[in-house]
Amino acid sequence: MIELVPVIIGVVALAFVQFLYYSVSREDAGTERMREIASYIQEGANAYMKRQYTTIAYFILALAVVMGVTRGSLSALSFLIGSGLSLTAAFIGMNAATRANVRTAAAAMKSPGKALRIAFWGGAVMGVAIVGLSVLGIGGLYAAFKTILGGEDAALEAIVPFGLGASLAALFAQLGGGIYTKAADIGADLVGKVEVGIPEDDPRNPAVIADQVGDNVGDCAGRGADLFESFSDNIIGMMILGLAFMAKYGEAGVLFPLLAESLGVLSTIVAILLIREETGNPVKTINVALLTAGTLNAVAFYFLADRMLGDPGLFESAILGLAASLFVGLIVQYYTGTGYRPVRDIADASRFGPALNVITGLAVGLESAFLPLIVISVVVAAAYFLAGLYGIAAATVGILSTTGIIMASDTFGPISDNAAGIAEMSGLSDEIRSSLDVLDAVGNTTKAITKGYAMACAVLSAFVLFAAYLQSISSGGSAVAIDIGDPYILVGLILGGTLAFLFSAMAIRAVGRTASEMVAEVRRQFREIPGLLEGKAKPDYARAVDISTRHALREMIPPTLITLAAPILVGAAFGVRPLGAFIVGGTIVGGLLAVYMINAGGALDNAKKLIESGLHGGKGSDAHKAAVVGDTVGDPLKDTAGPSLHIFVKLITIVALTFAPLFL
Amino acid sequence: MIELVPVIIGVVALAFVQFLYYSVSREDAGTERMREIASYIQEGANAYMKRQYTTIAYFILALAVVMGVTRGSLSALSFLIGSGLSLTAAFIGMNAATRANVRTAAAAMKSPGKALRIAFWGGAVMGVAIVGLSVLGIGGLYAAFKTILGGEDAALEAIVPFGLGASLAALFAQLGGGIYTKAADIGADLVGKVEVGIPEDDPRNPAVIADQVGDNVGDCAGRGADLFESFSDNIIGMMILGLAFMAKYGEAGVLFPLLAESLGVLSTIVAILLIREETGNPVKTINVALLTAGTLNAVAFYFLADRMLGDPGLFESAILGLAASLFVGLIVQYYTGTGYRPVRDIADASRFGPALNVITGLAVGLESAFLPLIVISVVVAAAYFLAGLYGIAAATVGILSTTGIIMASDTFGPISDNAAGIAEMSGLSDEIRSSLDVLDAVGNTTKAITKGYAMACAVLSAFVLFAAYLQSISSGGSAVAIDIGDPYILVGLILGGTLAFLFSAMAIRAVGRTASEMVAEVRRQFREIPGLLEGKAKPDYARAVDISTRHALREMIPPTLITLAAPILVGAAFGVRPLGAFIVGGTIVGGLLAVYMINAGGALDNAKKLIESGLHGGKGSDAHKAAVVGDTVGDPLKDTAGPSLHIFVKLITIVALTFAPLFL
Repeated sequence: MIELVPVIIGVVALAFVQFLYYSVSREDAGTERMREIASYIQEGANAYMKRQYTTIAYFILALAVVMGVTRGSLSALSFLIGSGLSLTAAFIGMNAATRANVRTAAAAMKSPGKALRIAFWGGAVMGVAIVGLSVLGIGGLYAAFKTILGGEDAALEAIVPFGLGASLAALFAQLGGGIYTKAADIGADLVGKVEVGIPEDDPRNPAVIADQVGDNVGDCAGRGADLFESFSDNIIGMMILGLAFMAKYGEAGVLFPLLAESLGVLSTIVAILLIREETGNPVKTINVALLTAGTLNAVAFYFLADRMLGDPGLFESAILGLAASLFVGLIVQYYTGTGYRPVRDIADASRFGPALNVITGLAVGLESAFLPLIVISVVVAAAYFLAGLYGIAAATVGILSTTGIIMASDTFGPISDNAAGIAEMSGLSDEIRSSLDVLDAVGNTTKAITKGYAMACAVLSAFVLFAAYLQSISSGGSAVAIDIGDPYILVGLILGGTLAFLFSAMAIRAVGRTASEMVAEVRRQFREIPGLLEGKAKPDYARAVDISTRHALREMIPPTLITLAAPILVGAAFGVRPLGAFIVGGTIVGGLLAVYMINAGGALDNAKKLIESGLHGGKGSDAHKAAVVGDTVGDPLKDTAGPSLHIFVKLITIVALTFAPLFL
Repeated sequence: MIELVPVIIGVVALAFVQFLYYSVSREDAGTERMREIASYIQEGANAYMKRQYTTIAYFILALAVVMGVTRGSLSALSFLIGSGLSLTAAFIGMNAATRANVRTAAAAMKSPGKALRIAFWGGAVMGVAIVGLSVLGIGGLYAAFKTILGGEDAALEAIVPFGLGASLAALFAQLGGGIYTKAADIGADLVGKVEVGIPEDDPRNPAVIADQVGDNVGDCAGRGADLFESFSDNIIGMMILGLAFMAKYGEAGVLFPLLAESLGVLSTIVAILLIREETGNPVKTINVALLTAGTLNAVAFYFLADRMLGDPGLFESAILGLAASLFVGLIVQYYTGTGYRPVRDIADASRFGPALNVITGLAVGLESAFLPLIVISVVVAAAYFLAGLYGIAAATVGILSTTGIIMASDTFGPISDNAAGIAEMSGLSDEIRSSLDVLDAVGNTTKAITKGYAMACAVLSAFVLFAAYLQSISSGGSAVAIDIGDPYILVGLILGGTLAFLFSAMAIRAVGRTASEMVAEVRRQFREIPGLLEGKAKPDYARAVDISTRHALREMIPPTLITLAAPILVGAAFGVRPLGAFIVGGTIVGGLLAVYMINAGGALDNAKKLIESGLHGGKGSDAHKAAVVGDTVGDPLKDTAGPSLHIFVKLITIVALTFAPLFL
């Protein structure tokens, strides 16, 4: 019963998640003051997540009914499980993060090595929960549905809604979280840093708690849901594709992605256990973990691809995928790292005011979209050359096999960020804070890499889903051509591309509106609460939290509904072939916009940090003020619209895949 | 000899151009001081154009040699004529504009109606020169080549390089002009308005002459070359497409676009003659001219399509095209006009600082890309439904038939802008200046509409060229399918899309670099020239002009070479089908980016104007300072990268069309 391997590994992963969770929770949570601040953040995050999940639940339930009526009860079940597991993984992961943050800060009082381990293990809860729940869910459903429905085809058709559920939940989570976090961040910075002149994370700032909560519900829970979706969608898409290769590989072709990713879960666990306390250099420690996971995965691919499927081309494709994720990470580091020309150019332009800072930042972002897409093109072309269409899917399996460890090092980011914030707000010594700042800086690098990684995963997963889509609309084994020379196909491409623009606009506008209200509220508190600036009175943190919460919940709905409805409308109006073009147009344009926005924001952020480190007059100089404007402009690009676009590209594709039978 | 009709109309148009030119030149050029300033602008613009044309000439000659070797001497000839006529039209038009500006200012001293006529007729030189030279060139070459080569096919194949020449010249002109104008504008504004606090167009500002020169070499000559190219490319593309419909329409199918556009030249002339001096409302006057040209064109289409070709669907498609250009214009007005919600939202966001102003502006720009592309999709789908592939081309003929009058009202913009600047610098009375400001405001509206129009023309022309490309790569009459399901096709789409991002980045970076130097130089002059701010000393205008000139000439080359080389590389590496996908990817992404950038810039510009009109504290308020930052961020987007992308999409397509035979 090889189908049960993923289920068993999934259960092992959950046990490991529990182990990590308790081993982090057991640690000391520091002083009274630290616990108090941590509890604000935890309560704020949990309160938001509960309200967010309630809102999402209505949509999920409504759509489950539609799914049940149009595709049967198993589809509805798998849809509910997909969305439920996505939300669960994100919730567990975020919960661990809000416990790890204060414990990281407390550990920093004793040993930097211990702080690193707690932050990383805290992040690993998210990483392992995502990949574990995904293989458990898909593996379990596949084994069950195959038995019930009596065939691979029927089983997979009923599993497609699992991906839809994961995608829908992810889009809500990422949009809501992204709007929340950036409105709070902008509100805190614009009034606190720029107008009133108090430092980052100062407890007098009314938006400071909302800002910390935002790191958890946006960066942490949002990206968790994103990668759960990429990971799951990719497995499902490739399993469907495997159906077409049954003649060549047998059922092993269907099981390959599931088994490969399950073994990837095991390598992730091994790699996480390598993070110990005696370490000196945090970057080196994380790199060792990444390298270990990658090497173990390569070995697993070799056995699965070369031995089980007997196709060395698949092994090579998967390795190509692994290498590509490395390249994309390096490119992102080049464009957003403080040590390279692009960020330095932005910092230099800041001497001529905020406008030239922003112009240069936008140009860097646009330019940065070029190479990652070239890498993706090379992977697609080379894997196709090596092992055909199935080889492209194998390459994406290669990339996604490191999801767990990447997500762990990503969640490490907001945990360290929060830890530094808690240390600042609790008035810990400079020494402790600077040791946490080192972790925070490492976290910024891992966050940037993960965003590049998430984009590559999203675009490639969407392409694999597209291949599955092509297969599902092919009539009786003969492929359907989607010829660009046909004007309706051209129209499909245009519509997909233009929707990505509308979607981004809505996400950014939402942040703009919410942030404006936040700025007004923070200004009001500083004006109306006597003694606030002098530290004699407490700000009303709850009001700021409430503004972010209300707006985020309201504003996340329209873009999601449009993303859900558009493929259905295009399919109904033009049929399945233009719908295929629509997916491709949306994916390419969405992918490009995502890299542009994420890297523009990342580069602008780091240009500000570079100036803060002393360049062009350092903090308080005119160049610094210009760079703060640029950083703020980049905020909604890099943390709201950009990451949401990742989910957008997958959601339009899986909606098309789910509803395609209706338009045939 | 119906082929000679375009030639005859072309000659008539040139005679009319001469009439307009002299009737404008004959007018009074105002006071001594006005003449002096006008001569600075004229000399600066001419000096720049001469250097620019010299630089361009090297590339043109080198490529003509390549063309001669690979495609024969007639191709080389037609390439030289295409680029030559493009440069000539832009030069004549700009020259007229630099004469009309001061005469408009002088006329404003007597009668606002007269000022309007001079500004419009001055702009009409550009409008008529473009369409006249285009039909003359293409019509003449077609008649000659058909006789020499003995067939429509061979004649058209030798005419394709005419389009390539026009495109290449246009890209150089638009990029060079765009970099020039925005660097000067930003330099003048950032130091003059923001740092030193002197008004716009103040003669103490060292960059003020460079700024005025920029309006002419960028907005005026640049857009002229852009529309010459769209107009020509579209005629050539549809003529090639007509070859495939010879069985249905006979040679009339090949001649239709040439004849339709030639009659469009005549309607343009009639419409221009309707602009008289007794008018009260300038908007109404221009609208009457536009409407007249549109109506006359509709009548011409009816006779050509319905009677000559006997296909009422073609007439309907052309009318659809005419209507679409109207819709796109209205959409652009909505997103960038001061009277509507988007610009008002940006102005409101300015109260919360420059960052939220820019964020909102970028979001408005992104959103504004949605509807115009929907309109284009509807036109493509509906025209295809009405009259097949040839119907889509007929729709573009409908849009492009108003090129002459649109270009005239567009060039009216920089002329009025310059006139207002000259009035300011010559110290004319407030009354005269405010009557010129009215014209300037009208000019801003017509400029915004034209940019939307130019985008629609560019994208649709590229699609017609793409259809011609498909036909040219079809083997022995059977069409070649470019199936998105093929991974190499997907790669082609991605490469095309990502190149548009790289291209935009390069254009924006070029402005950023040049503007930074300009800011440094203007700051230096204010610091080092004693008495400059007090008006006791003269600034060194020539140094500022020189910075813009040198950088523009240097920076325009790399993006152009990349645009030229990329389709050739893709074709050589992957073959003609992925190259087709490359064109489509580049066109869709380039078109979307162009609308985004142009409207974001336009909306940010007008949000600033709205605040200057008194909203949120008016000039000098914090909201105004924030809006000035936003306006500056928008500058390179709307006047350099955006318009250059129009040419980018056509250039990649015509390069592919020209060199396709090599990759078959």
